[in-house]
Amino acid sequence: MTLQNKQILLAARPTGFPKGSDFRLVTTPVRPLEEGEVLVKAIYLSVDPYMRGRMSEEESYAAPVALGAVMTGAAVGVVLDSKDINYPCGTYLAGEFGWQEYFIGKAASLRLVDPDLAPLSTALGVLGMTGLTAYFGLLEIGELKHGESVVISGAAGAVGSIAGQIAKLYHCSVVGIAGTEDKLAYITEELGFDAAFNYKTTRDYSAKLKELCPKGIDVYFDNVGGAITDAAIPLLNLHGRVPVCGQISQYNLEEPELGPRWLHHLIIKRAKVQGFLVRDFAAKFPKALQQLGQWYGEGKLKFPEQIAEGGIEAAPAAFIGMLHGENLGKQLVRIAPELPSPALMQ
Amino acid sequence: MTLQNKQILLAARPTGFPKGSDFRLVTTPVRPLEEGEVLVKAIYLSVDPYMRGRMSEEESYAAPVALGAVMTGAAVGVVLDSKDINYPCGTYLAGEFGWQEYFIGKAASLRLVDPDLAPLSTALGVLGMTGLTAYFGLLEIGELKHGESVVISGAAGAVGSIAGQIAKLYHCSVVGIAGTEDKLAYITEELGFDAAFNYKTTRDYSAKLKELCPKGIDVYFDNVGGAITDAAIPLLNLHGRVPVCGQISQYNLEEPELGPRWLHHLIIKRAKVQGFLVRDFAAKFPKALQQLGQWYGEGKLKFPEQIAEGGIEAAPAAFIGMLHGENLGKQLVRIAPELPSPALMQ
Repeated sequence: MTLQNKQILLAARPTGFPKGSDFRLVTTPVRPLEEGEVLVKAIYLSVDPYMRGRMSEEESYAAPVALGAVMTGAAVGVVLDSKDINYPCGTYLAGEFGWQEYFIGKAASLRLVDPDLAPLSTALGVLGMTGLTAYFGLLEIGELKHGESVVISGAAGAVGSIAGQIAKLYHCSVVGIAGTEDKLAYITEELGFDAAFNYKTTRDYSAKLKELCPKGIDVYFDNVGGAITDAAIPLLNLHGRVPVCGQISQYNLEEPELGPRWLHHLIIKRAKVQGFLVRDFAAKFPKALQQLGQWYGEGKLKFPEQIAEGGIEAAPAAFIGMLHGENLGKQLVRIAPELPSPALMQ
Repeated sequence: MTLQNKQILLAARPTGFPKGSDFRLVTTPVRPLEEGEVLVKAIYLSVDPYMRGRMSEEESYAAPVALGAVMTGAAVGVVLDSKDINYPCGTYLAGEFGWQEYFIGKAASLRLVDPDLAPLSTALGVLGMTGLTAYFGLLEIGELKHGESVVISGAAGAVGSIAGQIAKLYHCSVVGIAGTEDKLAYITEELGFDAAFNYKTTRDYSAKLKELCPKGIDVYFDNVGGAITDAAIPLLNLHGRVPVCGQISQYNLEEPELGPRWLHHLIIKRAKVQGFLVRDFAAKFPKALQQLGQWYGEGKLKFPEQIAEGGIEAAPAAFIGMLHGENLGKQLVRIAPELPSPALMQ
């Protein structure tokens, strides 16, 4: 019996927020393995803001997903069949599987995961690209120093929630910005943020930031862009830094938004605004993962996650909900149960 | 006979472009020197875009000039009287004299100038803050590398004209942007820029930059801000850099201008936008001046300057003209003849 692979394809390029009809579910037979390939069964799929960019035609740092192609995305799973002696059946791997139940390809492009060290889902989160993004954004691009004043937008999201905790480990004063009262409570009460405010119910971001950051802002970790960023930049301290991690407020706009010009503030404050992608730091991943793993093991990094049930079919709705800010922390989709039964192992 | 000092005071805070009535000429008697002070007779005064900021009430990196106070500004001059044995009469000094004929104060805040090494006016230009601003902006903030693609706005101005020549010394491809055909001819034919365009007669800055920078932009040296900057940022190459030196297009606006948001481009390109002030590099001035002096001595750095005649009374018009782009290179005002007669030495 040939194994059937459910896949989510990009059916249409969205205008504004993506909708269900922009995706299409198909079932295709799994092809036989070639020499050196592995067959990996996905267990968790990660849905992230950057994927919105890949759905657009415009060239970005990566090519857009072609219409009719499998949506791009990272997942963690287990090897079901292998023609690579280095990756036998039962090996856990994480990497760019795409939105599908089974991945076939070379294991060299994937990353080994030890399921005994930490829960499997952390390979997509605190001990994966999410944690690394927060780590390098804050420490390398943000040049974070002990005791500084830090503001994080998208603070209850996957990256923001970890960035805030790392800043607290550096004894910083940390203000988070999020969009629901539950998120504010979570990041202040559970994650240790010093203060937080709700961008949906706060009228004057500038006044609120001034109130919560009486000493100004040394590092503004930008996940969202737009009006929140406009308010944060003029409050930067001398030699302030703005790691630009994401611009989720802008991804679903049908028309580009205008905003106030603020480059003169960068001169006055001799401040730096710098975009980054975590993959540029690949050479430093092992050391960073060691540090993140240590913090995680010591219980110093909590990792909120939300897992959508329902298999690969649930991915589009989970993704769209995440873009609307419905997630607290990392948004995952459970593609298969964590412990596959022997029957599933074929 | 008491020496009389003509001074230009800030009479009113300008709305939009400054006008003559925003300044007031007064004559005050020069007070006697105290121990440790020098009396310096100004020879050249420098008028620069940053002074527009000091005329506004808004706090910037330096306090605003108070209404009724002497306008701030750098000059070079000669010691006429001294109660500091380290700075005898005849010593040449440069520094923050203000817009006046005579400066009285401690010499320690000023910089010694050797009039035999280079023309006196270069102490305010290529071998002074102007040259240092171009040098540190391009090499430290801009992290310029040999052979890169460089775009310079305000290219025929004091800083821009030197920045472009330094980039050429680094074998870069250099495109300048300026506002008259004479300026374009000067920077391409005299200063060696590879190409240039007129922002007043070019409709589509983005198309023009694409045409002149077929390999994209590695460093955009920003003196002007506004629509030129909007066009340059999306054309940055991977790991592009934007040293923000000035924003002259914005200084005289009566209402803040809106512009397209472009932070997503910084993520895509992992690019950096960083403001700076030359004074932050003070510890490195001696080494930089040595390099600039060497290039200048070898004839590798031309230093265009325009000298307004008419004494201190001519400063407001020269300043306003500079803000309107009437200058080619450095705009100076001759406050007194270069070789004071013995009679003037009292």
